[in-house]
Amino acid sequence: MNPPDNPLPNPRRVYFLSNRTAITAETLGHSLLAQFPELNFSPLTIPFIDSPGKARKIVERIDADAEQTGMKPIVISTLADEEISEIIRQANALMLDPFESFLPQLEQELHAHSVHESGKSHRISNPTLYESRIDAIDFALIHDDGATTKQYSQADIIVIGVSRSGKTPTCLYLALQFGIRAANYPITEEDMDSEDLPRHVKQYRKKLFGLTTDPQRLARIREERRPGSRYASIEQCRQELRAAEQLFEQYRIPYVNTSDMSIEEIATKVVELAGLKRLSKPVLKHVDE
Amino acid sequence: MNPPDNPLPNPRRVYFLSNRTAITAETLGHSLLAQFPELNFSPLTIPFIDSPGKARKIVERIDADAEQTGMKPIVISTLADEEISEIIRQANALMLDPFESFLPQLEQELHAHSVHESGKSHRISNPTLYESRIDAIDFALIHDDGATTKQYSQADIIVIGVSRSGKTPTCLYLALQFGIRAANYPITEEDMDSEDLPRHVKQYRKKLFGLTTDPQRLARIREERRPGSRYASIEQCRQELRAAEQLFEQYRIPYVNTSDMSIEEIATKVVELAGLKRLSKPVLKHVDE
Repeated sequence: MNPPDNPLPNPRRVYFLSNRTAITAETLGHSLLAQFPELNFSPLTIPFIDSPGKARKIVERIDADAEQTGMKPIVISTLADEEISEIIRQANALMLDPFESFLPQLEQELHAHSVHESGKSHRISNPTLYESRIDAIDFALIHDDGATTKQYSQADIIVIGVSRSGKTPTCLYLALQFGIRAANYPITEEDMDSEDLPRHVKQYRKKLFGLTTDPQRLARIREERRPGSRYASIEQCRQELRAAEQLFEQYRIPYVNTSDMSIEEIATKVVELAGLKRLSKPVLKHVDE
Repeated sequence: MNPPDNPLPNPRRVYFLSNRTAITAETLGHSLLAQFPELNFSPLTIPFIDSPGKARKIVERIDADAEQTGMKPIVISTLADEEISEIIRQANALMLDPFESFLPQLEQELHAHSVHESGKSHRISNPTLYESRIDAIDFALIHDDGATTKQYSQADIIVIGVSRSGKTPTCLYLALQFGIRAANYPITEEDMDSEDLPRHVKQYRKKLFGLTTDPQRLARIREERRPGSRYASIEQCRQELRAAEQLFEQYRIPYVNTSDMSIEEIATKVVELAGLKRLSKPVLKHVDE
């Protein structure tokens, strides 16, 4: 243990708990903790807490943490099962549970009882929804980096940009998270010389979306791939990005600068600016298990 | 509008609001609504509400919804900006805001003020974290479907299973969400004939993880790809799955049946059963913007 006057305080232990995937607890938890950027946290996600025995072991662990660090751990949990939830509540921790906080208000407003089962939202209630995400992933893979352009008529969007501007992760996220069929096509030196859009994408102008970034950032990312190359030089990056942005402007292609954005943010921006629809999630269908 | 005695009631309008990506509001919202599987909801996600003007327009829209449907809309929001939050609260709706509910308790426990800025958690605070996810995606793409096996020594996990058992989406999700380097390798008829693991993966037994599914489900998925083929026949699917499961048992490879699991659940199960570490999220670093 650090002495009390240690300039680096112990991080606060945080638990994300759930009887299913813990994705909701983790997502919400990260958003809440991000509101305290000056503090240090030590997070631990424990999914699939589906028995009283497991729950009791976790309580022991939390209590041991509290004792060892001299600070109450934070617990962010989505435990809809009453029995398990009851056990976890015994722990010596600050307990934050959005189910506990919000379900009573929802029940009252909706004049309905909640089923008290966690994790429904990430379960497959409608197999065609699973399959539409899989389809979108297949589409993104086949149409990655201009590999094929034959089915562009079926694309929801075609992302363009220079090498390493973030096209592939953006398209994969669009497919996985939103079920959107996203192709991507690289803008190369050839296109810059011709000062025109690549031939294969030009006829799909309405579907195009541009990505750009800062030259410094691009150079750093490229440097990791091909150290010391012209490809990774700041001049080359600057020139390619400028040419790409000129094309976006010239053809009025919506685009974003991804420099300080996460993959989630880029994908969400693309959806918004391109006016695409997010996939409606399984949760909203009848759960039949 | 449906008359009051219509057997199909109007769906309840639900808004997921945020001044950033709205991923937290959406994720939490879906989990909450999933607790009411008998009810119908009509969800709408509105991200990037970053000005009072935008907020006021949304209030008008919510109020119009309330009037038109005769039911209060549900609003699940993560609006850390006080001014915007204040405007949204004027709407005629049931307002659920985890920031409002939980930040005061957190502030008290942590003896610290929150910064009241939304969406930090999906922002890049540490570029190397962005890059480690990108690396993991690159790795998954290069190592998809056994395309190459050269860098298996660098894989965190190698997912194996028959064609269309869910290997690719699982690996991509592991990369995107958790920054895990996941390769995947198909189990083919050849391996079934030899009743042994594919040669390329055999030496990495400790890294292997198996996926299996139900024959009916596999047949349906394959049928969409190659209608009427032997590949999609129920006999073939049954035989392949049985052979794959026998290999998993024989070599004590952990595996899951993915039949009624979402991609999120499969990936989370893999992480848990294989004892992998989830990527620690950017939120936990100092946010420098």
